[in-house]
Order: sequence, then C-alpha cells, then structure tokens
Amino acid sequence: MSSTSLGMAHTSSRSAILDVIRAAGTISRVELTHATGLTGATISTVVRRLMNEGLVVEAGQAESTGGKPRRLLRLDPNARYAVGVHLDHAGITYVLANLGGAIVGRWRKSGAGSDDPQEVVTRMVGEIDAMITRVGVDHARVLGIGVVSPGPITASVGMVLAPPIMQRWADYPLGDALEDAVGVPVLLDNDATAAAIGEYWAGGIETTSAFAALYMGTGIGAGVLVNGTVYRGSSSNAGEVGHICVDVDGPECWCGSQGCVEALAGPAAVVAAAQAQGLDLGQPDRTIAEQFAAVARAALRGEPAAQEILQRSARFIGVAAQTLANVMDLDLVVLTGPSFALAGSIYLPTVEDQLGRSFFARGSHPVRVTISSNASEAAAVGAAALVLQSELAPRQSGLRIPAELMAEGDGKPVQTLA
Amino acid sequence: MSSTSLGMAHTSSRSAILDVIRAAGTISRVELTHATGLTGATISTVVRRLMNEGLVVEAGQAESTGGKPRRLLRLDPNARYAVGVHLDHAGITYVLANLGGAIVGRWRKSGAGSDDPQEVVTRMVGEIDAMITRVGVDHARVLGIGVVSPGPITASVGMVLAPPIMQRWADYPLGDALEDAVGVPVLLDNDATAAAIGEYWAGGIETTSAFAALYMGTGIGAGVLVNGTVYRGSSSNAGEVGHICVDVDGPECWCGSQGCVEALAGPAAVVAAAQAQGLDLGQPDRTIAEQFAAVARAALRGEPAAQEILQRSARFIGVAAQTLANVMDLDLVVLTGPSFALAGSIYLPTVEDQLGRSFFARGSHPVRVTISSNASEAAAVGAAALVLQSELAPRQSGLRIPAELMAEGDGKPVQTLA
Repeated sequence: MSSTSLGMAHTSSRSAILDVIRAAGTISRVELTHATGLTGATISTVVRRLMNEGLVVEAGQAESTGGKPRRLLRLDPNARYAVGVHLDHAGITYVLANLGGAIVGRWRKSGAGSDDPQEVVTRMVGEIDAMITRVGVDHARVLGIGVVSPGPITASVGMVLAPPIMQRWADYPLGDALEDAVGVPVLLDNDATAAAIGEYWAGGIETTSAFAALYMGTGIGAGVLVNGTVYRGSSSNAGEVGHICVDVDGPECWCGSQGCVEALAGPAAVVAAAQAQGLDLGQPDRTIAEQFAAVARAALRGEPAAQEILQRSARFIGVAAQTLANVMDLDLVVLTGPSFALAGSIYLPTVEDQLGRSFFARGSHPVRVTISSNASEAAAVGAAALVLQSELAPRQSGLRIPAELMAEGDGKPVQTLA
Repeated sequence: MSSTSLGMAHTSSRSAILDVIRAAGTISRVELTHATGLTGATISTVVRRLMNEGLVVEAGQAESTGGKPRRLLRLDPNARYAVGVHLDHAGITYVLANLGGAIVGRWRKSGAGSDDPQEVVTRMVGEIDAMITRVGVDHARVLGIGVVSPGPITASVGMVLAPPIMQRWADYPLGDALEDAVGVPVLLDNDATAAAIGEYWAGGIETTSAFAALYMGTGIGAGVLVNGTVYRGSSSNAGEVGHICVDVDGPECWCGSQGCVEALAGPAAVVAAAQAQGLDLGQPDRTIAEQFAAVARAALRGEPAAQEILQRSARFIGVAAQTLANVMDLDLVVLTGPSFALAGSIYLPTVEDQLGRSFFARGSHPVRVTISSNASEAAAVGAAALVLQSELAPRQSGLRIPAELMAEGDGKPVQTLA
C-alpha cells in the first residue's frame, strides 16, 4: 500500500497498476481502484493493455461477497525477463531473472582481461544471446540488460576512472555500445552497489535498517541499502571503501591518493606480500584473482605465512568496515564478492572483532557481520534486479526492491550453463 | 506539490494542508482541494481550525477568473516559534526561530562544564524562559525545543556514549527531564547533524545534491544532507568522522578504538602538541576550547610552531573529509562549528587540496569546500529547524527542510541577547 500511494503522483498509471498487482499477488479490478485511487475506466483500459502484453493474467474469482463475482488478476512471472551482467577483469557473470524475481539461468565466462572493450562487448552480445536461447526464453520477452562493473561510473559513459587493470575501459561508451548492439535498454551501475541489491534481493536480510555489502573482487568497494533503498550520494559513486585512507604516509594508490585500504590490503597487496615471502602462487602469468585464490587456499590449509598475510589484510579491512559503519551507521555488514567467497571465513572473525570493540554507536546497537551465501554472483543478480525494478516502478529516485520480488518465483528449476 | 502529494497518505490532513499553504505562499481553498485531493468540506473544517489557532490568516483575494472572488490564505510566520539549543561542554547556544524560518533571537551562555546535568537543565529552563521573554514572544506560541549535543544519542535517553568531557551526561534522561520542566515537546539530536540542517536552512547551499557539514567543536563530527534530507543510518548516529581510523597502530581514543582522527588531530590533540612544544596557552585552568583558540590565534598571527601544529591537524582532517566524500559521494563539504569558526581559514586550503587530488570520483564531479558563514551557531539553528519541521510535516521519515523555510522571514530585526 505505502509504496503504491507514495508513487501515485510520480509514476505512470501503468507502472502503478503493475506494482499494485505485483504487491498484492492476486487482486480484483475493484480492489485496484481502491488501492490506486484511479478511476474504474482507467483501470479497465490499463489492465486490458497489460493483459494484451501478457504481463497480467486472470487468476480465478474472488469469493463472492453477495454481488457479482470478481475476477482476480495476477502478474505472469514469465512474461518478461531481465539479464544481469557483472563485467570484471577476472570473469563475466551472467544471470537471467524473470519478472517474478526468480533467477532462471546463470553463466560464468572468462573476464574482460586486457582485451579491447569493443571486442569484449561483441563477445558479451553473443554470450547474452546464447544464454537466453539455451534457457529457452523468447528474446522478445527480455526487458533490458543491467551491466555492473568496478570503478566510478557515469550513467552515460561508464567507467570514468577505471581501475588500472581495466584502463582501456575508461571513457569507453559501454552503455551506448551495448544498447546499439542488442536493441534493448542497458542500465549501468557500480558492481558493489549491485552486490548490495543482489544480497537484499536474494533474501535472508530481513532485520536490517542500514546494511552494507562489503565487496572484494580484485578491488574493494561497498554498496549500502537503507530501508531497502540504495544510498547513491551525488553521482552514484558512494561506498568507495577501498579508497579509505588508513595511513596518511602509506603507499601510493592507483586512485591518486595514498595509504588506501585497497593498496594496503586488497588482493594485489596480498599477492605482493605472498610473493615477497616466496610463497608458491603457481605460474607467473596467473591473474591477481588466481594468485589471491592460491594464498587463500594456502591459509585455509593452515600454512602460517599465508594466514599471517591474510590476517594483516583482514585487520585493514576491519578498520575500513568500522569507518563505513561509523560514517553510515550500519547494523549489518555482509562480506561478498569473489575474494570473500574464497577467503570470507578468514576475514570474518577479525572484522567482527573490530566492529564489536570499536563501532562508535555500539551503545545504541551492534553491527552484525556475515558472509554472503551467494558471494560470487550477487553483483550480477543485483544488475538484473535493477532492470526489473525500472519496469515495475520507473520513477522512484533510488532503487527500492519490493519485498515481493525477493520470492523464489514459480519454482521453475534454475539453469546453470556450463 | 511533490512533498504534499507524497505525504498525503501518511500525514494528517492538518499537517498536509499546513504544508501546502506554506509551500504555496498564498493559496485559495479551492486550490487547496486540488493540491491535496481532500474534499471541500475537510478543507473548510481544517482551515477554520487553523485560523482559530492563528496559524493561518487571510491574505486578500485572488484575481477573479469570472466566478466568485476567492479569498487567499497564508501562514502567519509569527504564529508559532521554536527554540533551538546547542548544549556543549564549552558553551550553550540558544536561538528562537519563527514559523516562517527567521531567527528572531540568539543567546550564548556558559557551557555545561563539569556541572551536574540536573543543575544544567534547571539553568537551561531559566535561560530559555528569559530569552523568550526578552524577545517579547508569547510563551504559549512556543511549539517546542530542539536540543542538540555531541556523541551518540538515542531518542529516549540522550547521550549513550558521552565524550569524556561530558561523562556525567551518559544515560542522563535529558529529553524527559527538560520536557517535564518546560511542558512543551523536546526533540534531541546530534549536534553535527543539526549543524548540517542549520547550514542548509540558513541558505547559501543551493547547488548541492549531497553535502556534509564537517563539524569541529571540542570533538569532530559530520552531518550529511542528500537532496535536502538528513542521512540518518540505522539509529541516527551517522557521520561519526571523528572516529575514522587513519592509523591502525595509532593512539587509543576515548571511544574504545585507536588511531581515530579526533585523537590524532582534534582540538585536544592540537592543545597537547602545543603544550609539548611549550607554546603559551594562557592559564592552565583554561578549557580545551579556550586553549585551542589560543593556538589558532597564534597561527593566524604567523607563529610557525602553531602553524605547523595546525597544518598537521589539517592534513588528518583532510584525509577524514576525503574518506567521508568517498564513502558518501559528496559534492560539498562545509567546515563548521566553533573550532572552524576560529581556524577555518587555516584548514580550508589543506582540505581543499586533499579532496582535489584524492577524491575518488573526481572524474565525475569535484567536491567544493567552504567555511560556514555561521559556524558557531549552525547547530542551534538546526535544532530549531527540527522543531518547526516536526510541526509542518511530522510523519516524514528523515528530515526535509522545505526550501521555503529557508527564507529570511518577515524582516523583523533579530535580537542578539547579551
């Protein structure tokens, strides 16, 4: 009810009606007029159009209350789909989500590496097309594509300050290039922000009013959701915890600052420390992500040198989490992203301990710390959620994932493509 | 229009009508029915009540459009007043604001010091009463009192983790004690948050979508407003930049953590450094605020030792500002609070330089840095704004200061009490 009436003056009747039907599960036309405040004639016209588009279907009759029986309406979860893409140096993750919010397909392919952006986009177009085909979804039902990537972004251009490993993407018009190639809308966002949306969407985060997804891939970032709404700041570049300075005289960082947490404790720093100590990280041509994984596995096997290196990293990450919690007054931090998918259990106790001892408002409430159950895929899931959300309630400032979208959908089995 | 229709489902008709009249300046009853969606009968009843209460007055007639001339309504800015109190160790600042948003009285009295909280509250009651009387306002027209203070707060109790200098206030039921004594509602908030509201309210901050008031009194904090709405986090304790860790092996801080910016660079650290270098800071019984002022004056006179100490402090504050900007994606930082009122010109270039070189999303937009034109009073002004806001639109989550409230009121001269 609340999001509906709040949105009324701002969203089109179409989105509003769609949103009320989604929120209600099943609802009659008469109930729709009450819930939206729109006239019966408007409801009739819009519902007819939504049924013609296949978005809404009839779902039996409501129990009679004396008068004419009322036919119920519901959303068809498989009427539309959204693609979520997490574009990273080390890997590209694709998911396909239906309008009901269920993930019906997932695919992990090799990363952007140092390839030419245009070539990567061409490959992405092919891989998106192949995923949709292999899951067996009609391409015409795909609403759009959400693409999330590291680094500061702008809505029009993409990465304006790409991490060093993705320098070729700086100022590359990713959104336009992909949209031209696929012919459906493309939404861009930061991967850590999307990971927060993905964590929220995938469920399990019920009792939080302000939480951060602390994301570690090759870099470190965070997305923050407050009462289900993304905190975006002035240009959607909030949550850059990797570039919190924890040592004013510390090493220079690629971002132009010095003593950044990412430079001191990120995967590249961990790998450099491991190399300096002569740890075996496999072939020298392996990526930072692969070498970080080697350090993490060594630590999990109990090798003291690897454990010590990761403990030192965890101490800095814990301090960054404390700063994030103190600045944004969080009650939950979820460790997510591919690096925490591997090494989360090593980082968790240190981050928990730091927040337990040092969170400033601990007299008011604690900050819980958990490891994501979906750490390697949360960003791609969030990317798909962005697209679905834009269809259901396009004009809200700041994304709000409706609780209903977090359901598991229609129970159709999810296809994981190999 | 937007805030009105948005609030419709949630606020009472009374607040909604009051808010539409305020936003419109002058408006007829017919226009009110269109703007609120309420029936003509409801509008008539509520407007009659508001006029009886003196909140709304008639303001001439609208130009006739053929039919019966329509009488216009407007808010009476002097119908109600709000008191804002900034309670700090070093001083207590009082302001009196009218419903139109103009500051009509201000008073600065000695601080809480180490006095017993109950005695301080008794003194505050007397000083509030005296200010209202001396400005010549009817006590019955005072809506409530906003009290802002340092440290983590809870709505019911007050400071749950008071700074060391105000330890006696920890767990003291400030809100209840004051409300019992004065008989009008008392709102509590953090002083840095209130300073942000005060900066926004006092005007001059037009072109920002996310700004922070970086507040330095005896401690260091920040309030952040995003599109005019306070960012509060999960328990209204956001913006604790003084407890950003910038040195994992740094000195212990009273908050329980170590290497906090406040411990390394706050006024107490500046005074300690000055004492260690043998600078003359006057009588040894002077407060930290007075001694910090002595260092600031020495630096402004050109004494190199004092300048060097403040430069070192500024470097840490600059790093904290960078972290705050990176985490919250700010486009403006305003230096405010009594310590920046004195020493802002020394800190400004260093903070500006740090953000210019190191703000992570500088490829998207810059972060401006300014010194408040009202640095010593912004928190008290914000405290009064909280009360006015609660009358005009009580149910909004997160405070939104209407642009119209930022006007200079009716031009009545402001009384500064001695």
